[in-house]
Amino acid sequence: MHKYARQTRILVAVDCILFGFDGQDMKILLIKRGLEPEKGKWSLMGGFIQPNESLDDASKRVLYALTGLSDVYMEQLYTFGNPLRDPIERTLSVGYFALLDLTKFNPTLTAEYHAEWFSIHKFPSLIFDHNEIVAMARQRLRQKAATSPVIFELLPERFTIPQILLLFESIFETQFDKRNFSRKLMATGLVTKTRDKDKTTSKKGAYLYKLNKKNYQANLTKLLSIIPKGTAYLATH
Amino acid sequence: MHKYARQTRILVAVDCILFGFDGQDMKILLIKRGLEPEKGKWSLMGGFIQPNESLDDASKRVLYALTGLSDVYMEQLYTFGNPLRDPIERTLSVGYFALLDLTKFNPTLTAEYHAEWFSIHKFPSLIFDHNEIVAMARQRLRQKAATSPVIFELLPERFTIPQILLLFESIFETQFDKRNFSRKLMATGLVTKTRDKDKTTSKKGAYLYKLNKKNYQANLTKLLSIIPKGTAYLATH
Repeated sequence: MHKYARQTRILVAVDCILFGFDGQDMKILLIKRGLEPEKGKWSLMGGFIQPNESLDDASKRVLYALTGLSDVYMEQLYTFGNPLRDPIERTLSVGYFALLDLTKFNPTLTAEYHAEWFSIHKFPSLIFDHNEIVAMARQRLRQKAATSPVIFELLPERFTIPQILLLFESIFETQFDKRNFSRKLMATGLVTKTRDKDKTTSKKGAYLYKLNKKNYQANLTKLLSIIPKGTAYLATH
Repeated sequence: MHKYARQTRILVAVDCILFGFDGQDMKILLIKRGLEPEKGKWSLMGGFIQPNESLDDASKRVLYALTGLSDVYMEQLYTFGNPLRDPIERTLSVGYFALLDLTKFNPTLTAEYHAEWFSIHKFPSLIFDHNEIVAMARQRLRQKAATSPVIFELLPERFTIPQILLLFESIFETQFDKRNFSRKLMATGLVTKTRDKDKTTSKKGAYLYKLNKKNYQANLTKLLSIIPKGTAYLATH
């Protein structure tokens, strides 16, 4: 008998954590679960992987089915393998997180699912180990914000300094020094001022900035300088 | 019929990348595969997860079976889910990487498997997608070296400056500025000089240093200052 034959096959799902920034607050998209167990309770959007589908493709399919979105930044987060995490049957969950600028595109949520955006600072308790998955995603988001440009996926192409300040404060859940923020941010070389102003929030208006893609990689580590000392940002995973 | 019932169950394996530093060079442990397909070819050590076993437990079991080691730093790397990665039957692979100080403990390799240490700079081509798994583990190791103290798991408790220089050069695969290395390293506040010397490599001897666990987290970002400019260290995952 082939050695593979004796082995146990198990269910594998992907679960997607979709983060969206609306210019004020960081949100996550949650759905009211439509099947037992835990029907009617809040959960991440997820689905079982299909026989000929890669993990990346499965997570894209799940995101598309719920939001109609296909061109979104996504990456694999972690795989959750507690044998008892699903009470019906052992199911491995491969977590994916996705980043979305809600001011650019607020997806039309599929009517088939009951989905809602919640503030990352106030959302209902989730089924299974989904609270743990979200906690790890938030930790990863902090690591990304400190060391990677993907965080700019959460902002419009052109953004104001108050917007990026709110984004960072939302991610790190801490108050930044507002007086020095602009100076420190400019010193990173990561953003460039444009000639235009956003006049939606005040008469005087606020200058719009954009990501400076030159010297991108070299300037990234300078992001660390804008994060308040003592703020935890290194993910353990 | 329950919605779970219609779904496909698949095989799930863990594959372990064990990195070891022998004071000179970074090594990885590989095994000559004992079963078909690809029998006799080199591979990472791995095994199928068992019905009631978590992923962490499975990777510990695999590492222990091959090396007798149980107290080793390990963390989950990434899950590889290409449907065709194993030609016999679809198998998901959850990669784990482990870090070992080879000068402290060079494990007695189980005779049952044919295992060998190879330099990370020169090792045979591996089966399936194992080359890709190793490549991602090396990238993660760079990220860790730049932002985390776990890299010290690869060194003895007390180490010399040349040893830590060789470790960093081995990880980043680049030459560091040797004249400024010691000064820059001391400036991070991460290591403390002891009164003792290592006299195994020269008559004069080299002072032994140890990790300074005070102000650990705050000093970590300073590690970035010792890495040559333009060196890629941020993992994409």
